[in-house]
Amino acid sequence: MNDSTNPALPRRTLLSAGTAALSAAALGACAGPRGARRESGDAPGIAPGSTILFQGDSITDCERALEDNAAPNLQANLGFGYAWLAVAGELVDRPDDDLRFLNRALSGNKVYQLAERWDADCLALAPDLLSILIGVNDIWHARGGTYDGTVEVYERDYDALLTRTRDALPRTRLVVCEPFVLRCGSVDDTWFPEFDHYRAAARRVADAHGATFVAFHAMFERALTYAPPEHWAEDGVHPTSAGAALMAQTWRRVVGG
Amino acid sequence: MNDSTNPALPRRTLLSAGTAALSAAALGACAGPRGARRESGDAPGIAPGSTILFQGDSITDCERALEDNAAPNLQANLGFGYAWLAVAGELVDRPDDDLRFLNRALSGNKVYQLAERWDADCLALAPDLLSILIGVNDIWHARGGTYDGTVEVYERDYDALLTRTRDALPRTRLVVCEPFVLRCGSVDDTWFPEFDHYRAAARRVADAHGATFVAFHAMFERALTYAPPEHWAEDGVHPTSAGAALMAQTWRRVVGG
Repeated sequence: MNDSTNPALPRRTLLSAGTAALSAAALGACAGPRGARRESGDAPGIAPGSTILFQGDSITDCERALEDNAAPNLQANLGFGYAWLAVAGELVDRPDDDLRFLNRALSGNKVYQLAERWDADCLALAPDLLSILIGVNDIWHARGGTYDGTVEVYERDYDALLTRTRDALPRTRLVVCEPFVLRCGSVDDTWFPEFDHYRAAARRVADAHGATFVAFHAMFERALTYAPPEHWAEDGVHPTSAGAALMAQTWRRVVGG
Repeated sequence: MNDSTNPALPRRTLLSAGTAALSAAALGACAGPRGARRESGDAPGIAPGSTILFQGDSITDCERALEDNAAPNLQANLGFGYAWLAVAGELVDRPDDDLRFLNRALSGNKVYQLAERWDADCLALAPDLLSILIGVNDIWHARGGTYDGTVEVYERDYDALLTRTRDALPRTRLVVCEPFVLRCGSVDDTWFPEFDHYRAAARRVADAHGATFVAFHAMFERALTYAPPEHWAEDGVHPTSAGAALMAQTWRRVVGG
């Protein structure tokens, strides 16, 4: 999950625009009180007949088939991560609702890399619901020195991606998932508070575009009460099966009808 | 998961009582239509302040701590299986509801072995909600020749266990989970239709005692549409992490409020 495999990696310039000021509301976002099934935005559930597209990086990709992957709903085409586990629950609970789930996430992606393949891997698929989880590589690769993006670049690119999506697909429901890390493995205290700025940026982008926000980082903060960080994401970034299972439940509660 | 480790294993006698006639309703039970959150019995959800006890065999045990395990809600005391994954979702969603989750399942157990330790491992704990998943060893060990129980013994013992529970804990909500197998690993077609008789017996026992029934076998039958049996339970009996994640979602949907 770094850019060393991409010799053509474009270098990014730092933007002065945008504020990284933390919103207390954003940081305080959590899975929501009992009975409140959604966190923000207009969240009408998943209508029968919908096409649902997952987008993101390795956390969503999870070894999904990269070729001959047009068929919806098959585990092989959806990977083994939270997306698949949420899909499995939806499909088993709603066998007669003609739901079509697709996954086009790609390991290593940052926001600008989603943008580069957005026509084919999002707009052409015309999803009724689009769920995006992106951001950890935007900070991780910058920290590693293989990328010169910043939180301002992240927010600008993410905002542009959703503007472009809404222009092309005005009726598509948007879901923005909060980036998350656990303090273990590759992640330590030096990631903070910078990481909080990234997740606050994701929250602002979600709010600006009327997207449902799935507060995964806040979810994991709570989950640490009951199990150590390694239980949820051994390397601090990629969820274990337990972490993915918890994400799937939260995604369904927040997004599902 | 066999009785070779228990030289004192009591031998069971076959009962003539009970019918193994399959109930079409029982076999047709499934995760339920969209919006129907429960499948049978009086299912008021999980009230704040509740103590919830999981009981069963290895599928529920999943390497939970066997000593110093009194503390509720900790992953170490709840194992890594469906029970823990359901608990994690409930706890993260309901942090202020003072829920106390316990797991006292034990690998290898059949119904009569639950009965042998029921005073200490169930009644003394006085749960507000008791969820039991038991049965696969009752048939598996009989097929393996280490146990002479039958489906009639299973149903009689299970019925007696719930009668005893209701007498001691009349206000405890009961949840009976359907035993399940997948046709792979240790399980092949020769398990059927006998296995169907066991799960129909579990359904009858649930109905007789007003228990909520969680139709795990029917759930897995549906899930096979999207992934092969090995994806859900590599040996046909013990769920993979994906199988456990799906069970947790179904358990919460059916049992949770």
